[in-house]
Amino acid sequence: MLTRIDHIGIACFDLDRTVEFYRTTYGFEVFHSEVNEEQGVREAMLKINETSDGGASYLQLLEPVREDSAVGKWLAKNGEGVHHIAFGTADVDTDSARIKDKGIRVLYDEPRPGSMGSRITFLHPKDCHGVLTELVTSAAASSVAQGTED
Amino acid sequence: MLTRIDHIGIACFDLDRTVEFYRTTYGFEVFHSEVNEEQGVREAMLKINETSDGGASYLQLLEPVREDSAVGKWLAKNGEGVHHIAFGTADVDTDSARIKDKGIRVLYDEPRPGSMGSRITFLHPKDCHGVLTELVTSAAASSVAQGTED
Repeated sequence: MLTRIDHIGIACFDLDRTVEFYRTTYGFEVFHSEVNEEQGVREAMLKINETSDGGASYLQLLEPVREDSAVGKWLAKNGEGVHHIAFGTADVDTDSARIKDKGIRVLYDEPRPGSMGSRITFLHPKDCHGVLTELVTSAAASSVAQGTED
Repeated sequence: MLTRIDHIGIACFDLDRTVEFYRTTYGFEVFHSEVNEEQGVREAMLKINETSDGGASYLQLLEPVREDSAVGKWLAKNGEGVHHIAFGTADVDTDSARIKDKGIRVLYDEPRPGSMGSRITFLHPKDCHGVLTELVTSAAASSVAQGTED
């Protein structure tokens, strides 16, 4: 079950400048940053609020590290802007299988590593009224589901 | 101060079909619907989660009621997808004035009526790294600020 807006993914040409824009304009600070080599992005997570399911909502600022990454190609075509939206779930495997059974194209056979140790998959935007949609299970929720929490 | 992701605004050609997509795919239900004549849209608010500032995060599905509305023109150019993002604040007047002082273009001289009795304004996407950004003060927060709550 999808229980929160986990993040809004925003593609940008220059991560440092965009982080600075969000900091000086709104006061949003970087909560976490990392490079995701598989996705081909350098990213910063800005935590905006906590959510009623025990999680949080973030802005995820994304700068491609390779022009041929999905975000790099998207930026070349569209320019800066909202790249995707993401919903949080305690169980991305079950939800993605359930959604696939409805005829929505799920882009990965198995969830892949996302921000901050999460597990993620994407739904095809053409099956989602034009919105590239990510499903996320956070690292904390994954460890609870797998019985590996402390 | 901006304290939550208030909503993600998604433009669509057919509101009823898009509402049905979000209901059958994810289980999200319509929390509120209305026509905003000034904005030229018919809209449905799907509540996704509550937030740590006492508010909530929604998806806002938007169908233009006039081709010459901002959303109508945007849809004709871009097709369906994420139209804008919105941050919640207890005081849209103070925040929009503060942001205007930083040189960001604020699209309205005074906040205008938004969903569910809120007061809203927009920031120019070209000043916000390509993201049309809305600031929202909910009806409840407005009445507290103005001393008109029950």
